Amino acid sequence: MTSRLAVTYHVRSDAESIETRAQAIAVEQSVEMPLEAIDDPAVLRDMVGEVQAIDRLDDGRFSVRIGLATATIGNDAGQLLNMLFGNTSLHDDVVLHDVAFPAELLAAFGGPPHGIAGLRQRVGAHRRALTCSALKPQGLSADRLGMLAERFARGGIDYIKDDHGLADQDFSRFADRVRACAAGVARATQATGHSTRYMPSLSSDLNAMRRQIGLARELGIDCVLIAPLIAGFANMQALVTEFPDVAFFAHPSMGGAARIAPALLIGTLFRLIGADAVIFPNFGGRFGYSQATCRLLADHARAPRDGLRPSLPVPAGGMTLQRAPELLDFYGPDAMLLIGGNLLLARERLTEETAAFTRAVATHEYR
Amino acid sequence: MTSRLAVTYHVRSDAESIETRAQAIAVEQSVEMPLEAIDDPAVLRDMVGEVQAIDRLDDGRFSVRIGLATATIGNDAGQLLNMLFGNTSLHDDVVLHDVAFPAELLAAFGGPPHGIAGLRQRVGAHRRALTCSALKPQGLSADRLGMLAERFARGGIDYIKDDHGLADQDFSRFADRVRACAAGVARATQATGHSTRYMPSLSSDLNAMRRQIGLARELGIDCVLIAPLIAGFANMQALVTEFPDVAFFAHPSMGGAARIAPALLIGTLFRLIGADAVIFPNFGGRFGYSQATCRLLADHARAPRDGLRPSLPVPAGGMTLQRAPELLDFYGPDAMLLIGGNLLLARERLTEETAAFTRAVATHEYR
Repeated sequence: MTSRLAVTYHVRSDAESIETRAQAIAVEQSVEMPLEAIDDPAVLRDMVGEVQAIDRLDDGRFSVRIGLATATIGNDAGQLLNMLFGNTSLHDDVVLHDVAFPAELLAAFGGPPHGIAGLRQRVGAHRRALTCSALKPQGLSADRLGMLAERFARGGIDYIKDDHGLADQDFSRFADRVRACAAGVARATQATGHSTRYMPSLSSDLNAMRRQIGLARELGIDCVLIAPLIAGFANMQALVTEFPDVAFFAHPSMGGAARIAPALLIGTLFRLIGADAVIFPNFGGRFGYSQATCRLLADHARAPRDGLRPSLPVPAGGMTLQRAPELLDFYGPDAMLLIGGNLLLARERLTEETAAFTRAVATHEYR
Repeated sequence: MTSRLAVTYHVRSDAESIETRAQAIAVEQSVEMPLEAIDDPAVLRDMVGEVQAIDRLDDGRFSVRIGLATATIGNDAGQLLNMLFGNTSLHDDVVLHDVAFPAELLAAFGGPPHGIAGLRQRVGAHRRALTCSALKPQGLSADRLGMLAERFARGGIDYIKDDHGLADQDFSRFADRVRACAAGVARATQATGHSTRYMPSLSSDLNAMRRQIGLARELGIDCVLIAPLIAGFANMQALVTEFPDVAFFAHPSMGGAARIAPALLIGTLFRLIGADAVIFPNFGGRFGYSQATCRLLADHARAPRDGLRPSLPVPAGGMTLQRAPELLDFYGPDAMLLIGGNLLLARERLTEETAAFTRAVATHEYR
């Protein structure tokens, strides 16, 4: 028996065409050539994608399940994406909806190196939800960002992330920024005793990211932010393997909501390649994800799954302090709330507003 | 004056909301926070995206032009994608349509190292269109693929690409495949005198790709295939810089037709980061690109542009020998026709069918 991934696509089609269309996707995502030109029976049997099920969905589209040979992935996270959706992403009638992975593939990828427990342990918070904010805007000097980080940390926040737009630009060199922010957080931690963690945003190519992590570790930093769709899945996979003591937060940049189901991309695939925490746009914020999508995404990130550690869901994107109780009830304590710009609106009262945020999370009584 | 990229988005909106929506995109793709929380006037002036124009399109959508600060890119191709569309890709009402780059950014990225002239020179074809085919299916042994390569080459084809599904799997190790294919092509070249070029498909992380190019060069190979959206833009940029004598063919895998205009993504951005040739799904084949889209894409790839070499357009995806004359008239001689599966249908007559293809291209009289 050939080991296969069961890949579900949602396809816009009429009833007469769906079988042909499903078969075309199965070929496109495997051998990518006319089957009658293949003379090797083993290839026809083991390599060609097979249509396993076609079901009509309530919205009139069709759910098509296709078995793709696990052997075509070769334990390469980039190739995983390529085989799941590479060419088919170019068709606008198809959404990549879900994947059922064989256990051997889950084991080969390995998932989050630290998972939720590791992120809790880093900040000594074992039951409550975790808190997070973001350093913004682009254009501030390293020193200004470091002062912001200090004020967040003095408010008792658990995690502080770089804005994902902060890279290694002339106006904000990675090395300068990370030194300033690490120092700012250290000053606050000395004052408060709370072990706030700062995570710098990685950018550029794999070697640059490797140097960035190296510098961060010299400064005692053990968490980083990465955008897997920009870094390349295989490069994130390489970093996760190479730096086993570092926790990885995945940013959804370039996630293209409409074409890959968010729960699959962010909840499942980012987890699979090693994200300890997954940041995603929360319902009711600046982005269009529905409440149901967010529920499913969080479920995918945290659900028990053959030996994979859970990823921590980090709802974000236009969140406010006022919504904290609602979100805590919705996601439960195995989550991290990320409020960025809305805390920064407090300006000179930033530390106090941050303290109100951390207090709200710490004292919340879950319904 | 701040140097800015002029980025055009096509937005689905009603007339009352479009100004607010445009302003929201400008903020999302720059400082990503409430402007009233920014107290630094230089950031407000130089960093915040600015809405430069809003025009209604014929289809009822709006074209929104936003100026984004060039300084936020920092000459990092990954960051370029992040700033152009990172978070906004998560909104399903927006398509990234086009970008006008300042000359300094074009100069910093540099574009194709060889361009159309370099690809012509490699195979000694200076005026006619070039020809290409693909090694498939996945699952064939290295030796079988090598024999296929030889038969294509004996038919006088110019370029032979790996199927983009061929990575470094157990059933087809990169090293074995490349050795077998290089040997197959060398045997044919010795017989025919035509310098066919074989381009292996790069996969996995940056270091693996670097090793793959290293091995290929030892075997005399000077062309490779890469999927920028899977490799990560910055990693492709790094390879182009590191291997100046290698020509890069860009594959559109994960190109997500619906959300980034193909002419921009494949014709402009792939060229900008150094693709000497850009492969794309041709109209009337297996994919849904229109004739107008393909025309625009080829124009973007080839148009004169401040010191950037042109990229060679490579229409592909379900092409047939019968369509060669039509496509040659459509694209002109500065193009490469790629016929994969349709040539392979000839099975034992592969060399003869390939020869008919190369003859059709060589003898075509352009209208």
